[in-house]
Amino acid sequence: MKLRNSVLGLLGLLLAGPAVVRGQTGNVVHYTTTIDNVKYLFATVEPVARLKSGDILDTNTLDCFGNALKKPGDTPGMSKGDNPLAGPFFVEGAEPGDTLAVKILDLQVDGDTGVGALSPGFGAINATNYTPMLHSPLPERVWFYPIDRAANVAIFKALDSDFSVKIPMHPFFGCIGVAPVNGEARSSIVPAEFGGNLDSPEASVGNTVYFPVNVRGGLFYIGDGHAAMGDGEIAGTAIEVPLKARVQLSVIKGRTIAWPQFENDNAIMTVGAYRPLDDAVRIAFTELVHWIHKDYGMSELDAYELLSKVGRVHLNEMVDPNYVVVASIEKKYLPAKKK
Amino acid sequence: MKLRNSVLGLLGLLLAGPAVVRGQTGNVVHYTTTIDNVKYLFATVEPVARLKSGDILDTNTLDCFGNALKKPGDTPGMSKGDNPLAGPFFVEGAEPGDTLAVKILDLQVDGDTGVGALSPGFGAINATNYTPMLHSPLPERVWFYPIDRAANVAIFKALDSDFSVKIPMHPFFGCIGVAPVNGEARSSIVPAEFGGNLDSPEASVGNTVYFPVNVRGGLFYIGDGHAAMGDGEIAGTAIEVPLKARVQLSVIKGRTIAWPQFENDNAIMTVGAYRPLDDAVRIAFTELVHWIHKDYGMSELDAYELLSKVGRVHLNEMVDPNYVVVASIEKKYLPAKKK
Amino acid sequence: MKLRNSVLGLLGLLLAGPAVVRGQTGNVVHYTTTIDNVKYLFATVEPVARLKSGDILDTNTLDCFGNALKKPGDTPGMSKGDNPLAGPFFVEGAEPGDTLAVKILDLQVDGDTGVGALSPGFGAINATNYTPMLHSPLPERVWFYPIDRAANVAIFKALDSDFSVKIPMHPFFGCIGVAPVNGEARSSIVPAEFGGNLDSPEASVGNTVYFPVNVRGGLFYIGDGHAAMGDGEIAGTAIEVPLKARVQLSVIKGRTIAWPQFENDNAIMTVGAYRPLDDAVRIAFTELVHWIHKDYGMSELDAYELLSKVGRVHLNEMVDPNYVVVASIEKKYLPAKKK
Amino acid sequence: MKLRNSVLGLLGLLLAGPAVVRGQTGNVVHYTTTIDNVKYLFATVEPVARLKSGDILDTNTLDCFGNALKKPGDTPGMSKGDNPLAGPFFVEGAEPGDTLAVKILDLQVDGDTGVGALSPGFGAINATNYTPMLHSPLPERVWFYPIDRAANVAIFKALDSDFSVKIPMHPFFGCIGVAPVNGEARSSIVPAEFGGNLDSPEASVGNTVYFPVNVRGGLFYIGDGHAAMGDGEIAGTAIEVPLKARVQLSVIKGRTIAWPQFENDNAIMTVGAYRPLDDAVRIAFTELVHWIHKDYGMSELDAYELLSKVGRVHLNEMVDPNYVVVASIEKKYLPAKKK
Repeated sequence: MKLRNSVLGLLGLLLAGPAVVRGQTGNVVHYTTTIDNVKYLFATVEPVARLKSGDILDTNTLDCFGNALKKPGDTPGMSKGDNPLAGPFFVEGAEPGDTLAVKILDLQVDGDTGVGALSPGFGAINATNYTPMLHSPLPERVWFYPIDRAANVAIFKALDSDFSVKIPMHPFFGCIGVAPVNGEARSSIVPAEFGGNLDSPEASVGNTVYFPVNVRGGLFYIGDGHAAMGDGEIAGTAIEVPLKARVQLSVIKGRTIAWPQFENDNAIMTVGAYRPLDDAVRIAFTELVHWIHKDYGMSELDAYELLSKVGRVHLNEMVDPNYVVVASIEKKYLPAKKK
Repeated sequence: MKLRNSVLGLLGLLLAGPAVVRGQTGNVVHYTTTIDNVKYLFATVEPVARLKSGDILDTNTLDCFGNALKKPGDTPGMSKGDNPLAGPFFVEGAEPGDTLAVKILDLQVDGDTGVGALSPGFGAINATNYTPMLHSPLPERVWFYPIDRAANVAIFKALDSDFSVKIPMHPFFGCIGVAPVNGEARSSIVPAEFGGNLDSPEASVGNTVYFPVNVRGGLFYIGDGHAAMGDGEIAGTAIEVPLKARVQLSVIKGRTIAWPQFENDNAIMTVGAYRPLDDAVRIAFTELVHWIHKDYGMSELDAYELLSKVGRVHLNEMVDPNYVVVASIEKKYLPAKKK
Repeated sequence: MKLRNSVLGLLGLLLAGPAVVRGQTGNVVHYTTTIDNVKYLFATVEPVARLKSGDILDTNTLDCFGNALKKPGDTPGMSKGDNPLAGPFFVEGAEPGDTLAVKILDLQVDGDTGVGALSPGFGAINATNYTPMLHSPLPERVWFYPIDRAANVAIFKALDSDFSVKIPMHPFFGCIGVAPVNGEARSSIVPAEFGGNLDSPEASVGNTVYFPVNVRGGLFYIGDGHAAMGDGEIAGTAIEVPLKARVQLSVIKGRTIAWPQFENDNAIMTVGAYRPLDDAVRIAFTELVHWIHKDYGMSELDAYELLSKVGRVHLNEMVDPNYVVVASIEKKYLPAKKK
Repeated sequence: MKLRNSVLGLLGLLLAGPAVVRGQTGNVVHYTTTIDNVKYLFATVEPVARLKSGDILDTNTLDCFGNALKKPGDTPGMSKGDNPLAGPFFVEGAEPGDTLAVKILDLQVDGDTGVGALSPGFGAINATNYTPMLHSPLPERVWFYPIDRAANVAIFKALDSDFSVKIPMHPFFGCIGVAPVNGEARSSIVPAEFGGNLDSPEASVGNTVYFPVNVRGGLFYIGDGHAAMGDGEIAGTAIEVPLKARVQLSVIKGRTIAWPQFENDNAIMTVGAYRPLDDAVRIAFTELVHWIHKDYGMSELDAYELLSKVGRVHLNEMVDPNYVVVASIEKKYLPAKKK
């Protein structure tokens, strides 16, 4: 049973405010996100709800266009803003220097259609604001993806021929992060040390994401749901969808990290977010070497050598203001974790 | 039975010259590579053997150190040169503007020990010749990897603690390529349009590699066998091993390509090799869009959009003079190939 | 006579608030910057003073360490924050879509000693937060530069030998900018579209800087004075000094720009601020082509060709979170400006 | 009097082979370059002439199009190859590990017209082979520059309007270099450790260029004369001209360098040639720190700090396969050179 459908969930929806259900693995806090309560910045502002460490947040997110594109002819210009965010959510006890752990428990596509769009000035192999050229921009185009939830597929339909094909869905948050350090406020299209628009398919069910806590309460945000995405998100969008979500938020006191990390039963993963990609890869792998050294006790040079043999890199996106990669190693290659 | 062990194979070994066995799927040409007949350049020089289109080359390669590192205390400085190459092999009928198809039929690790090494000035997260810094270099280190061919694993043994772990083997050629265009001669540590030191795990059994033919006969080279490698080859080496190899060389007349490509039953793949990684990714994906457009008939914008949803990128290496990625799409997402 | 020394200037100093002197070329608004009223963000916050378009701002700035390093043994860690800013200053009539013109009238070094520092994790040829490596960091070092205002020189004194040399002073603002677009707040170490920590020696007497107005009033900030700086500011600092400054702020209604620009009698100049440097250069030159096309009537291709023959690029810095270049062309190479 | 006009010079021209005039500052070797004896590679091939250390080479170079573009309507496609080179010239006594010093004594534009061209796939702010995009290419265009040698100017004439402007000439070699190390052969469009297509305006009269000697005799090449060029050579060409040239070639025994260097009475300069520009700048500045440390006795950290205050960077080009910068420091800022 999804908690989202519970009576209290409906109550939360009606009140447009948080409601709390106490349970075994932490209380469940319902919060309903609408176009009227979204944010467009990762920033230190008044929280929309407060959770205790271990509580489960049960909420929903709008798609990257604020659910504004419904039918052929609709264009990205109809959006009130890119990447509307749910939040921020305050987690009690989180203080600067701690780590916020976000365990992703459930993600469901919240609609019947996904959207993809080619927007002038955005993309990996066309001229952009940050890699400008003298060419005329590519034309604006929008693709709609009918969603078959029973079959867990979204359907690509070519615009210039009659080809269509089914794409398996793997829902994840494009945006997931916390308030930045030092009072910065960053647009929801930016990925950086605070997370943000990471566009990491790793932000999906079964994985835990770790963020540095930069301000009291951490101030957690989510949004920009994706039903599926190619590596690099090269044309600038994934299959953009609203999501229904349950995530568990926990504070890890006294553990300090510089960049987001992912973990599941099988692997540890580090995020690098910068330009050029060379530097994003350097960030992710130095973080991974340090993590292995610190928690698993290998020397840094042994860890470096081992990663050169079994490490993995996943290019998440190469279109946002910073580019994002995830470096990882399977735990089966590591010594036992230090106590 | 491996042809390498046949009487004619032994004869070829004794003569240190090519021998030909005619067979159904093409003749088999045996060639024995030794430290005395290797090359250190991808260049237009006298071929060591000539094959007909469709012939199978049955040969062996030395490891990236010329098999010079045998035991603890041996160092990379004992190598006569990096990445000694077998070849070049002349393929009859190959003319500039054609494509050379190399189907990898069999690869076997040809030894009991693999080698990994950290060399000052080489690596993704230490100062190098092309990303120099004022820091003192990291120390030189060598790791030996005992190989268990029956179990198909190589064993990592930490130098600074007593940890060891088994790594599944996936043998592939680090170096595979042809003579460059316009008379250039490039060191065997360089990956570029002619292939070369691609360090692509995609250069393994079951895949076909396509190269542009730049000179008469194509002049094919292989070397730098790897038993396993992490994405990015970040410390500068894979598990370096000699290989025994069988590959089929075929000329595709009139098909012209700009960069190497891979293909198997499930996917088409394109290579981008440059710095920064941003440009390597741009090369690979524009090549892939053009390939899909040309052979599968989708418009370029539809192909761009589709790749943004289902495309994949594999970082091969970020340590050589150019960085290498492979972009790919599974054929199941493509329309039927045009006739 | 410097207005800063006038009675009203002293009054302004006593009141620590703005005072206005009405004059021919615009009123003069005095504002005294102290460690207690500085900001560390380019952001939309309450202005410290309001000016009319055409008014002259007469103020002072602290050095990048908040004037905290005074003598040998003092370290950057004694600073309360990097790059404390004077401001923000509200300019009446400035609305989003307008351009703010800042004419730099006078800059004087406000002290007897400049400071340079090597800080671990900051610099162009050592490992940093965004180009991390596994090496141990370079040591922290501080150099003090005695200033001879009469001779207009600062004196470099080597720490590891007894060499010293005089460096001519060319005072400029390292930080100069406005509130960012879309509600972003950026650290005062960041250069970007809003200006910020540009570290542009072009921000000096005789030049006018143009900024996009992103919020009502523009919200102008200055700080991080430099007595002299090498191209790239490669070790991470210039000769860091407090400044006394007079600048004239004017609103250009209806002129919209995307990136900061400089202009003087002889040249037009455009700023590119991003990573890698390749993209910073692309930004600056596309902006310059567009400017020439728009204001001087040349076709874009003619402008591109002409810049390839007479354009200039000045690397400002390669150490901040974005790298900054200024591209320029002398006006003598351009047609008459369009009316 | 120019030696080029001497009787023996004319004799050398008639014979189309080298002739030697012995003189005070070294013998003068005349060599006449024609489209029939040019090279298109920096490589180890048979020299066209041999000089003693200290001899003066008196020769000429063709423009980057082999002098093929003469009049409106002519296009780059009429060229037999890009950047035809004069040479190679063997310098007796030069052995690997030595340095070749090339003092540029005289450069004269050898014609009445210069050429500029926009070629699809080449340029800093249009899509290229190594930064490909999905846009249609910019159109091919050719500009002719009438040359007034008496006034020392070339004249830019806009194609799309009737504007024209005079550009002061500063002749220099776009291509200048030696045979690469390890048997490599590189296209004459490539700049790298061996020099090559550096497009450095520093390669002009009054400066000495130093190259690493990689093969016996050094094998010196020159070509690709430029009458004037903007920083970055952003549209892909300078004002392309044939040159008449006198350069003095000297061997510095036992001095080993890794990258080209420039020097004149006022400054020492180092070359960095790679992608992205970030790495080119890192190469140039680490080389400069090491040079200052080795020859002028400052500690590396003091040199780093001093360069951060008075160092200069000149972007030479951002269009060739590698990007080139020159970092420099004026000698007046350095201690006395060590004996």
